[in-house]
Parts: sequence; structure tokens; C-alpha cells
Amino acid sequence: MAFEKELIIRNVKYFSTAGKVEEGNIFIRNDKISRITPPAKLENMNGDNVIDGRGKFAVAGLVNAHTHASMTLLRSYSDDKALMDWLNKDIWPIEGKMKREDIYWGAALAAVEMIRGGTTTFMDMYGPNMEEVAKVVEESGMRGVLCRGIIGIFDGEEKLQTNVDLYKNFNGAANGRITVMFGPHAIYTCPPDFLKKIAEVAGSLGAEIHMHMNETLDEINDCMKNYGKRPFEVVAETGLLELGFLAAHCVHLSDNEIEIMRKKNVRVAHNPGSNLKLASGISPVTKMLRKNICVGLGTDGASSNNNLDMLEEIRLAALISKVEQMSPLVIPADTALKMGTEEGAKAVGLKNVGRLEAGYKADITLWDMSGAEWQPNYNPVSLLVYSANSSSADTVIVDGKILMKNRELKTLDEEKIIHEFNACANRLTGK
Amino acid sequence: MAFEKELIIRNVKYFSTAGKVEEGNIFIRNDKISRITPPAKLENMNGDNVIDGRGKFAVAGLVNAHTHASMTLLRSYSDDKALMDWLNKDIWPIEGKMKREDIYWGAALAAVEMIRGGTTTFMDMYGPNMEEVAKVVEESGMRGVLCRGIIGIFDGEEKLQTNVDLYKNFNGAANGRITVMFGPHAIYTCPPDFLKKIAEVAGSLGAEIHMHMNETLDEINDCMKNYGKRPFEVVAETGLLELGFLAAHCVHLSDNEIEIMRKKNVRVAHNPGSNLKLASGISPVTKMLRKNICVGLGTDGASSNNNLDMLEEIRLAALISKVEQMSPLVIPADTALKMGTEEGAKAVGLKNVGRLEAGYKADITLWDMSGAEWQPNYNPVSLLVYSANSSSADTVIVDGKILMKNRELKTLDEEKIIHEFNACANRLTGK
Repeated sequence: MAFEKELIIRNVKYFSTAGKVEEGNIFIRNDKISRITPPAKLENMNGDNVIDGRGKFAVAGLVNAHTHASMTLLRSYSDDKALMDWLNKDIWPIEGKMKREDIYWGAALAAVEMIRGGTTTFMDMYGPNMEEVAKVVEESGMRGVLCRGIIGIFDGEEKLQTNVDLYKNFNGAANGRITVMFGPHAIYTCPPDFLKKIAEVAGSLGAEIHMHMNETLDEINDCMKNYGKRPFEVVAETGLLELGFLAAHCVHLSDNEIEIMRKKNVRVAHNPGSNLKLASGISPVTKMLRKNICVGLGTDGASSNNNLDMLEEIRLAALISKVEQMSPLVIPADTALKMGTEEGAKAVGLKNVGRLEAGYKADITLWDMSGAEWQPNYNPVSLLVYSANSSSADTVIVDGKILMKNRELKTLDEEKIIHEFNACANRLTGK
Repeated sequence: MAFEKELIIRNVKYFSTAGKVEEGNIFIRNDKISRITPPAKLENMNGDNVIDGRGKFAVAGLVNAHTHASMTLLRSYSDDKALMDWLNKDIWPIEGKMKREDIYWGAALAAVEMIRGGTTTFMDMYGPNMEEVAKVVEESGMRGVLCRGIIGIFDGEEKLQTNVDLYKNFNGAANGRITVMFGPHAIYTCPPDFLKKIAEVAGSLGAEIHMHMNETLDEINDCMKNYGKRPFEVVAETGLLELGFLAAHCVHLSDNEIEIMRKKNVRVAHNPGSNLKLASGISPVTKMLRKNICVGLGTDGASSNNNLDMLEEIRLAALISKVEQMSPLVIPADTALKMGTEEGAKAVGLKNVGRLEAGYKADITLWDMSGAEWQPNYNPVSLLVYSANSSSADTVIVDGKILMKNRELKTLDEEKIIHEFNACANRLTGK
């Protein structure tokens, strides 16, 4: 790169690759962490390129491993309903009316909310016009992994083609901040023959797969009825699992399915908030972790969560596995935080993202530890995971660029986005 | 009252007694809501006693129905451990060293955190020097229901006497903002004969009872072994349930115990966050609600939660009951919000608290709806319960007095409290 920029976060406590809290100075050159030095002698260093890290906790930026960003438009529109009622009567009719501009402003609001919550990367699966989400990734400075949600039972071929176009036009775009996967929606919306077709097309491009898997008991039961097998058993015969596979949800799994996942290196996006709110169940996360399956965390869409707050998902992941296993020892705070950072980055297929370590991408969130809920400060990891909320996200850096500083957004016009977003929402719902 | 003060919140959306979102002007005279008028003609009204409610959502102040405020001193000191390890090795040794000043500063920090999170009332059970907590209630302007946690197996009589003194000195103090209960700690720390003694003493004073009940499976098993009965069956024979009884936790309940609770009008403080973190289990809340048992919400102490954030408890209460019942229909947002306000106030024995209604105490939190996570605003109740976090608490009023305005505390010196609090914590733990 021709122009070298250096950014320094000095005298900061940080969450190290070893899962410990250490103190040091983080040096960023262009888009990467160049080195981390011991906490000495920089107390008097100031300047435009120096961030005073005292009182802050630096953690790799949070990775939202499964969402549908533009569903922010449907937040609080319909809640506390049975899943199929909710989809058929409220969600799908509105989604059918969404235009290009809705996808853009919906994702833009999502980006505002995610940056404000300390999230630096999101994995997005949605309908037509995913290039609008790519535009938001470019403009916001975030990192985005995008796929077209392909519902195969209507116009499947056409949707598959839009995913091909998305891949060709955007994979590797924005200095590599955008990558593209293929997004077969689910076993109940894509017949096995069509899944094979997707596997062929994605495989020929070298693209990975993101798919909803084993979310509800109804899904499992229907799959057994239709195919005499469970979802992972069906998908294992399509070739999709050979390509690199990120499975969202994975709430109801047989031992054989977990064994398939282990063998095929399936990665998981666990969505505790959505799984609770829709009463899907509690994912057997500890069982997967014991098999060394990679588990990241996602918010799912804002209409089934109802926010894009990754810190909440990290907390929920730690809390609900404890009660699922009836043991306070499982998913301790450091494990949960890694699920929301390093494991999430692996899950969405990114290399060199998710750790504070030389050579890794400079995707960093500084958490402000000054509030009452951070006192006393015996253990910043425990405080972040169990006590703080996302309003403590103070400064957010992606690819070495500052997207938020002292809670002020640097790349997005929040006021305008909220205004345009609400105009879209009002038009869509007539409210 | 000699001097009449009026405070007006104009043009505000509010959560009404009917559980709906309405719009109007809330008039406060002295410590009470005097009337709520339709949303007309006050647009130009300004002045020191007028709060512009536009863009805000007024909800009765949140009621924390079970906590141990000064345990903030132990936040993040010990996490992700087995319950008895945690208590024996980490918590109790430090608690044994706590002095009068620790109780004061611990509770003062708790008050800062609670007010900042929109909480107006807390029910506190702790050890010696509860008069220091009373002092914090007086100074902060909050409403507090206090009891001495009486562990009967050591110096029980002496502790019972301190609860008597607390009652005599503070019940009804601070313009009625302080009330006092008796706090037998639990069935495993108080033998039945001693519980009878407490019932006699409290009954002679007309005081109510707060007690940990049915928190863990171990507690139930030990009780069965020692007494051949389950905890509520033992307590039902002591006279305590006749006095007005608030039971914290209630995670593991037999049908017979639920029937006892129903008959005796036992009220419940449900602590979803603590019950998850300590892996105690999920309380059968929907079963209790079907029997018309009053269920409020509590955070428990900050070392098992790890914060005093009632909005989080409201959300968790809605989410975990859905998965416990495998139905997204149970504990909808409005029910959860009532559990955190009106039902909580009833649970801790307060009359005329917990509703926005003429004649009720003016305990009100205004939630700022301007953030991205509040968009689009189809339903403020859903947004508050499922999307916002406690940093949206903008203005807090108790007994007609403003404790926080635009996130600025009016009664407490936050900086000094954090400083003194950390000095206490450091001395206690040697860290």
C-alpha cells in the first residue's frame, strides 16, 4: 500500500488471544495490528493518531454471525405470536412489498445500531437487492459477509443467479471488507435436488454456504416426514457441507447430526435471543464445543430479537447454557466473549479477524469502564459479559479506520438515516 | 402538606394501567400523580416545573423486588463457579469483613446504578448495619423496602433483634419511602422453631416477611431429608405465611406448594438472571400466574447477576418463560413490563405504587426513544422490553421528586460514590 497510516491505542487493558486481560499499547498500521507493546513510556504521547486507552477495555470487534439487517424495518411490528402466524400474517406480506430503497435504509439503520453496540462484522442473509447491503458495508466501513437468502420453492433459479451476481460483483470488494457466500434458506424452502444445484454453482466459484438449520422441532418433524432423515443428514448428501458451511440456529440436533457437523467442519451461528423469543428451544452448545465445533453468535433479524445487540447475545449464550446443563461452570465469561469475537470470525469464514494480535485485522472495540456497573473492576471480561450493556461501546475501529469515537459516529449520518428509515417503515406498513 | 409543588410531564406517551400505550399530560402534586389529561394544548407550556415528554415513554418506575445492594462490592470478584464453592471460598469470607462504611458505599453505588437504569424502588435484604442502607434510601430519594437477612444458625436472636430495631427506627421513615420487613434468610439457615419465633415477633409488630424460598434442587433435597417435607410445607407450619410473605426465587415448586402459595397469598420475586447464572433453574412463572399468584422481578445481588439492571430482568422474564413453556405466546411484553412495575410494587407490599394513575405515588421513569434501537416505533412496550437497554432511562422521578434528569443525577454525587466505593472494595479484597 502506498500510503502508510499509523494509529496507536496507548495504555489500554485488552482481551488477549490467550483469553486473559493484559495491558499494553496497540499499534495499527493501515488495516492491521502491527504490534502490541508492553505498557510503558507512552503516557505523554498525544496527537491525532493516538487514542488514550486508559479506563477502556479493548476487545476484538464483535462479530454478528447471523442476521437479516433490513428486517430492522419490522422491529416491534409483531411480537409474542406463534411462529407461522407471525411469518404468514405479519412478516412475509410486508417483506413482499420491500423495494430497493427499503433494503438500503434498513441495512443502514442496522449499521448504526451495530456500530453503536461494538459490532464490526455482520453476516447478512436477505432477499433481493443485496447489493444495497453491500453499499452500506462500503459506506459504513464495517465488515460484511453477504448472501442472498434463496427460497427454492419459488423462482429458485433466478434467486440463485442473483447470488452468483452478488458473488461476482462484491466478493473481495471494499478492500476485502465484503465477502460473499451462497444462502440456501432452509431445508423446508429448498428441496434436496435444488440444494445440489446450489452446491454445484457455489462450488464452481469456490464460495461457502450459509443456511438456516435445525431451528425448530416442526422443521425436524417435517423433514423426517418428507425425507425420512433429519436435516443435516439430508444436506450431507447434497455436497453443500464440503464447501465450508455456516449453519444458523442448530437448536435441535441428534448425536448423528453433531457427528456429521464435526466431520465436515460445519460452523455454527448460535442465536440465543431469537431462539428464546420464538420459543424454538435452547441449542446444545456445550455438546458442540466438546466436539470442537466452531460456534459463533448472531442476533438473527431485529423482528425476532428485537435488536442487533451482540453483547446481549454473548451474555445470553453464557446464561442459557448454564441452565441447559444445570451447571454454572459451562460457557464461562471468556468462552462467551470468544464466541462473540474470534469464533464468530472463523464461523463467517474470515481469516485474521477476531483477535487482538499482530498480523490480525485492526477490528477493535474500546469499551468504556467508567460507569457504576463496571465497579469494582476485578475482572473486565466478567464485567463486559455479565454486567455492562452495549452503551459502553465507546470507540469502534474496522480495518484500521475509526467508525465511532467517544460514541460519535464518523462514517454514517445517523440523523438522516433514522429519518429516511422511518419514512420507509411508514410506507411499508401504512402506520 | 403545607407546601404544594406541581410538576407536569406534557405530551408524553405512557404505559397505562390497562397495559396500553396512551398519550397525555401527567400532573404531579407533591408526592402523587394528581391527574392525567388528554394530549392537548400544552405544546407551548414551558418552565422549571414542566418536562417536555415528546419522544419519551413514561412508565411507572421499575421495582427491584429482591436484591442485596451492598453486594455490588463483590461484583466480578468470583464468577462461573459452583454455588457452594462460590459462597464458601469467595463470597462469605469477604462478607465477614464488611464494615459499616462498606454497607453504606456499597448501597450508594447500587443506588447510582439503579437510578441510572430506571429503577425507583428496591427490596433489600442484607447483614448488619442495614441502617446504612436506610440512609442511602433517604439521601438518594429512592423508595426502599428493607429487611435484615437473619441467618438463624449463628446468633439468630441477636440478628432478630436488629431487625426489630430496624423496623422500629425506620418503618415509614423518609415520608414513607422506607418500609421494613423481617428477613429470615432461608429454610437451610433457619430451623422451623426459630422461624416460629420470627413469626411471633414480626406478627406482634404487624410486619411482613421476605425470605429466600425453593432456589435450588439441593435446597429442596436437604429440606426433604431434614424435615420430610418441602420448604413451603415446612414454612406453612411456622405462621410466617399469615403475615404477608414475599418469597424470592421459587424455582422448584411442587403443585402442592403452588397451592399453598395461592391460598396464603404468597408474593414472589422472580430472579431470572441470577437463576440462570447460578444454574438454579427456570422458575415456573406461567404456572404461578395462572393461579393468580403475584410475581414481581428482582436482580438478586450484583455478584450473581452481575448488575442491578431491571430492564434486563424484564426481558429475561419474557424470554425464558417462552422456552420453558415452548410457546412464544407466554409472558408477552406488557405482562413482563407489569411484572417489573405494578406487580413488583404489590410484591414488596407497597400500596399506590407502580401505576401511572391519579392517586398513585409519582414514581415515574421517562425512557428516551430516540436511539436506533427504538426505530421504527410501532410499539413502545415491545421496544422497551425486547430492544432497548437501560441506558435509555432518561429521567427518573420518585415521590414527585426528580432523581435524574437527562441522565444527570440530582441527588447523588456519582464521582465521589464511585471513588469511596472502590476504596472499600480494594480494602476488602486486598486487590
